[in-house]
Amino acid sequence: MSSKGSGVLAYSGGLDTSCILVWLKEQGYDVIAYLANIGQKEDFEEARKKALKLGAKKVFIEDVSKEFVEEFIWPAIQSSALYEDRYLLGTSLARPCIARKQVEIAQREGAKYVSHGATGKQHGIPIPVTPKNPWSMDENLMHISYEAGILENPKNQAPPGLYTKTQDPTKAPNSPDILEIEFKKGVPVKVTNVKDGTTHRTSLELFTYLNEVAGKHGVGRIDIVENRFIGMKSRGIYETPAGTVLYHAHLDIEAFTMDREVRKIKQGLGLKFAELVYTGFWHSPECEFVRHCIAKSQERVEGRVQVSVFKGQVYILSRESPLSLYNEELVSMNVQGDYEPIDATGFININSLRLKEYHRLQSKVTAK
Amino acid sequence: MSSKGSGVLAYSGGLDTSCILVWLKEQGYDVIAYLANIGQKEDFEEARKKALKLGAKKVFIEDVSKEFVEEFIWPAIQSSALYEDRYLLGTSLARPCIARKQVEIAQREGAKYVSHGATGKQHGIPIPVTPKNPWSMDENLMHISYEAGILENPKNQAPPGLYTKTQDPTKAPNSPDILEIEFKKGVPVKVTNVKDGTTHRTSLELFTYLNEVAGKHGVGRIDIVENRFIGMKSRGIYETPAGTVLYHAHLDIEAFTMDREVRKIKQGLGLKFAELVYTGFWHSPECEFVRHCIAKSQERVEGRVQVSVFKGQVYILSRESPLSLYNEELVSMNVQGDYEPIDATGFININSLRLKEYHRLQSKVTAK
Amino acid sequence: MSSKGSGVLAYSGGLDTSCILVWLKEQGYDVIAYLANIGQKEDFEEARKKALKLGAKKVFIEDVSKEFVEEFIWPAIQSSALYEDRYLLGTSLARPCIARKQVEIAQREGAKYVSHGATGKQHGIPIPVTPKNPWSMDENLMHISYEAGILENPKNQAPPGLYTKTQDPTKAPNSPDILEIEFKKGVPVKVTNVKDGTTHRTSLELFTYLNEVAGKHGVGRIDIVENRFIGMKSRGIYETPAGTVLYHAHLDIEAFTMDREVRKIKQGLGLKFAELVYTGFWHSPECEFVRHCIAKSQERVEGRVQVSVFKGQVYILSRESPLSLYNEELVSMNVQGDYEPIDATGFININSLRLKEYHRLQSKVTAK
Amino acid sequence: MSSKGSGVLAYSGGLDTSCILVWLKEQGYDVIAYLANIGQKEDFEEARKKALKLGAKKVFIEDVSKEFVEEFIWPAIQSSALYEDRYLLGTSLARPCIARKQVEIAQREGAKYVSHGATGKQHGIPIPVTPKNPWSMDENLMHISYEAGILENPKNQAPPGLYTKTQDPTKAPNSPDILEIEFKKGVPVKVTNVKDGTTHRTSLELFTYLNEVAGKHGVGRIDIVENRFIGMKSRGIYETPAGTVLYHAHLDIEAFTMDREVRKIKQGLGLKFAELVYTGFWHSPECEFVRHCIAKSQERVEGRVQVSVFKGQVYILSRESPLSLYNEELVSMNVQGDYEPIDATGFININSLRLKEYHRLQSKVTAK
Repeated sequence: MSSKGSGVLAYSGGLDTSCILVWLKEQGYDVIAYLANIGQKEDFEEARKKALKLGAKKVFIEDVSKEFVEEFIWPAIQSSALYEDRYLLGTSLARPCIARKQVEIAQREGAKYVSHGATGKQHGIPIPVTPKNPWSMDENLMHISYEAGILENPKNQAPPGLYTKTQDPTKAPNSPDILEIEFKKGVPVKVTNVKDGTTHRTSLELFTYLNEVAGKHGVGRIDIVENRFIGMKSRGIYETPAGTVLYHAHLDIEAFTMDREVRKIKQGLGLKFAELVYTGFWHSPECEFVRHCIAKSQERVEGRVQVSVFKGQVYILSRESPLSLYNEELVSMNVQGDYEPIDATGFININSLRLKEYHRLQSKVTAK
Repeated sequence: MSSKGSGVLAYSGGLDTSCILVWLKEQGYDVIAYLANIGQKEDFEEARKKALKLGAKKVFIEDVSKEFVEEFIWPAIQSSALYEDRYLLGTSLARPCIARKQVEIAQREGAKYVSHGATGKQHGIPIPVTPKNPWSMDENLMHISYEAGILENPKNQAPPGLYTKTQDPTKAPNSPDILEIEFKKGVPVKVTNVKDGTTHRTSLELFTYLNEVAGKHGVGRIDIVENRFIGMKSRGIYETPAGTVLYHAHLDIEAFTMDREVRKIKQGLGLKFAELVYTGFWHSPECEFVRHCIAKSQERVEGRVQVSVFKGQVYILSRESPLSLYNEELVSMNVQGDYEPIDATGFININSLRLKEYHRLQSKVTAK
Repeated sequence: MSSKGSGVLAYSGGLDTSCILVWLKEQGYDVIAYLANIGQKEDFEEARKKALKLGAKKVFIEDVSKEFVEEFIWPAIQSSALYEDRYLLGTSLARPCIARKQVEIAQREGAKYVSHGATGKQHGIPIPVTPKNPWSMDENLMHISYEAGILENPKNQAPPGLYTKTQDPTKAPNSPDILEIEFKKGVPVKVTNVKDGTTHRTSLELFTYLNEVAGKHGVGRIDIVENRFIGMKSRGIYETPAGTVLYHAHLDIEAFTMDREVRKIKQGLGLKFAELVYTGFWHSPECEFVRHCIAKSQERVEGRVQVSVFKGQVYILSRESPLSLYNEELVSMNVQGDYEPIDATGFININSLRLKEYHRLQSKVTAK
Repeated sequence: MSSKGSGVLAYSGGLDTSCILVWLKEQGYDVIAYLANIGQKEDFEEARKKALKLGAKKVFIEDVSKEFVEEFIWPAIQSSALYEDRYLLGTSLARPCIARKQVEIAQREGAKYVSHGATGKQHGIPIPVTPKNPWSMDENLMHISYEAGILENPKNQAPPGLYTKTQDPTKAPNSPDILEIEFKKGVPVKVTNVKDGTTHRTSLELFTYLNEVAGKHGVGRIDIVENRFIGMKSRGIYETPAGTVLYHAHLDIEAFTMDREVRKIKQGLGLKFAELVYTGFWHSPECEFVRHCIAKSQERVEGRVQVSVFKGQVYILSRESPLSLYNEELVSMNVQGDYEPIDATGFININSLRLKEYHRLQSKVTAK
């Protein structure tokens, strides 16, 4: 049978994508298996062998960890991106990173199709019934998610043995680690462990180190019900150690250095960004636009934040910056600032003008 | 000297308002001293005696704790109100509660003026120089704030002995407390300690109990730099034990029961509410309007959330509700839901139509 | 052949829905034809005969004009609803009104299915090829739309003979009509022609009258390219005579009576409302919520606006209200208002505090 | 008496600033009079003589018209800036342009102070009583405003003789002018009168030409009540001929070329921009940020729009663009597009999943 052409399959080594691989071959396609190394724990060589054995024409194992951190996680940190006030978007950020490389491979290899795990469900590809896992997981450098199975009942508590990326807070060390995180343009550029002086400067290295230290202290666990793009509610449990520390540290240095009104506008853009990432619109004109605007807002977000991590919690301890809008003299209650008490009176009088008119009318109307 | 009329002074018993009391008397006013009991630790009878000794014509000590919880804190919990993503607004919520009662007293007593601590600074009333406190504090049932003094340098860490409302997390109990919080219309109506079965049902009682338990576990400390209404940045440290627990528990039950799109709109209103409260516009038409809309959104926010409090952290463990939009069958990966895979294909195709057009044009333009 | 059950078909009398009627019958359904009279020009009795002749089991002709005005157009007027800054949503508002009655009929008649014109395209029902109209039209009491055919080329100007609901402005009367429109709760309750004293008070009557007068003067034509829900851009030409007059008059009385900050929040809700209506989400929890909030904002939007209509344009001439926040004395440049010039100085000083700090830092940074 | 230093006074030649000039001299300041030529009709040489005669040390007459158009009006056009849905911000845009030059002069001349018309009121400078004008006016290249005096009563219609920048629509020409406006990056770069072929290409020239043609046809009059920054409502009448035409033409080319979702985000930024400009925050970090983002959104807003101006109204006739996202084939009802009817079904099914769940719950709750 002559080939219908090549397709690049995002292959995980697991049962579902293995079945899809075989099915695609049976349909007459040449299958190029693509495994993205995005920081998950996995035996990539084993997966390569399996793919070849199942009939893959070629196998590409691509390490996208560094670009995942720099081009996907960093913008999310700059945006203070939280989906529905809680979820740090670990899976949602990984997908467009994985897909971008898949498309690159397809273009390079002249493949006309790309295919992924959901292909199985959409085309009704038969997947053999196996003893069902008690839940499903999705891991990458930023987080691990748990959902489905026994977790589907939102009243069921997560079983103690579920977590893999963070220590149980009750078993975490009894003394905190203190980290100093330095930011430039809203992005971490240096992490120092204040106790032992350990320092990390490159993106991937410092993110990995934060995962390790924060994970050791049980930081970054959440258990939520979220709204899926397709409209239903879904329960998910996530561990995001480094992301959680960076979310808090960035928030602090941003508040310290960014103008109040710029921050309000940027906050609205950050909400939009989170929604776009969650719904799969990273590669869209609106998400490009929002990322551009947010990056612009971060030009002066620079300085050092000290945080402690302890028993599952991140505490902000202090901050300093060469670009802060904080003016210690002005803020002081002891020193006369740039404004006089009489100014405050005027400010209050003018601000209350509108309210006085409103109440004047209300009493007139009520009096009738 | 004949009186210039009566004024109601919000009197704290401290040095500043004592000086203002004396000064107002010297200017020829009859001073009615008003102390609001809003949950702070204070010797109210001592303050009463002092006010009378300094020449107050009358002294009113008014317990506003219950209305503070029900009419000010509850709307903030419903709103998920966070100023600049972090501050739970403890002081900002207390002010309009205190002021409302002050105006009531003025109307009842026929007083023409109201006056408060800031009056001293605005009128240049001389306050004797005393050994300066290392920081200033403001306490009420919801929180205590620390600022100024040595805290003004944002690089200085808070000294260990600063905190008064929460236990040091490193010294907190080694096992968590588990609390079940029941909500109706977005407001807590019952709190049960799962371990010992203790139950509290009235607003004031359950809030006080949550303060106690969460405080014991060190929950609710933050150290932030925030933007003041008058435009400068200011460093503040806050302890908000019950408020922190309720913020998280409410977020969870709301996400579980509220429609996704309603929630997005409500989220925008909540941001506005927080800003209005912080800037002192509680008693304004726009804040009334926003509170009305948010209350409307909470009609079906009902159910029970289990949380644990441990070493400074709040964990959501599980939730249930008679009004949840969560559909366990639909969410299941094992059961066929209300939609077919072919629907997902259509959904994706239509959603990507716009993106395809955008990229089609981009490549045309680039190709030129 | 036994029936597969009954279905209610939204029948227009035209070719497409006639073909669908026949096809449904062929498939074994009992067809109940439903014609909504929503103000379009149409021979309803002729359509009834045709439906019966084609095999409809029953025909219902329902006049929904009044509920269209009161329950769909009025909320849109209150919301100042404009899709993409220009389109007054004539078709989008009619759809949920028509559909609601269709569902009512289905429930009353025990029909299990509802079906409409788009059914033909979705099920591949063959429609005989006929000489193509130069464009397609959709009419109701609020507007008429023209699209497709020769209008698809956005560079083609609309042909002069296209318009049917408004006079060509170049042929419109040479002197304006002056209308006084009275609003209560943001909704018109009385329209008076100032010249001849004609008065209309009921919703349907006054809306019809405004269509007539504004139409005579050529008011309400627009030619736009809009973004469809499914993602593509589409060119549409619309005539909305009464809706255009009411949009402007309502805007004026709202600005006159509503608090500035309430209005800003309401403006955001109005944008959301327009988007929801356009995308077909009238009957959704979020649209219900938004309508509730907007209605709340309109409680004091009351008063009279005088407008002139002339050669396609609406001019606001004057307004008055018993509930206006407008204070003629305060606004006067001649009379001293509630604030002193010194207040303005204070207001400016405090507002500029933040800007001074920003520029102080910028010069420090630049100077380095 | 030795000088207290120099101050730059924004001098208009009128009574108020003349009195301020004299008062400043009397207080011991050296006064540098500065007249901005921003397109208003004024005898600048006469004003120069008067200033010198009153004792000004130096007089600068600065033509800022070109920078007014390019650096202030163009960003407003790109933003579709409307304050409170109606006001095109003619005065608000001129102020930061005038002020910027004033500061430049102060820096160049080593003056320590700047001063303007409002200085008189703030310092209680006596202005001789003169027969009061029936209203006050403020003119520049973009618009003229009328307010105060007999206009303060919002029920009074504007007297026929008030308007100076636009023809009375009832006396305007009986046939329209057709203009083709070409945009690049959201800014007009060429205006052609289709009838006579007249073409203008530079910013100042084409804006002046549009003022002339649109003014001749009575385009750009509005009569509104607006909310002032200081909180009160105020009635204003404005004529903005060129600005009105460009507002509509830009809206059209933007809708034609900009992605729907980018446009929604940009729309929010435009609302913010209008508010910032109106409240005097042009020179602020947030306004700089917003302008940057909006300019970014305009990169592909390019093409030609044909409009007619007639009896006070602007009509969009047609548009074309090399960068349009409009796809005539896709939009056609005759040609099969990039999506199948089955896709629409899936799109609808998935979109309605959330609504079905909502109604399922509602009926369950109601049934209880």
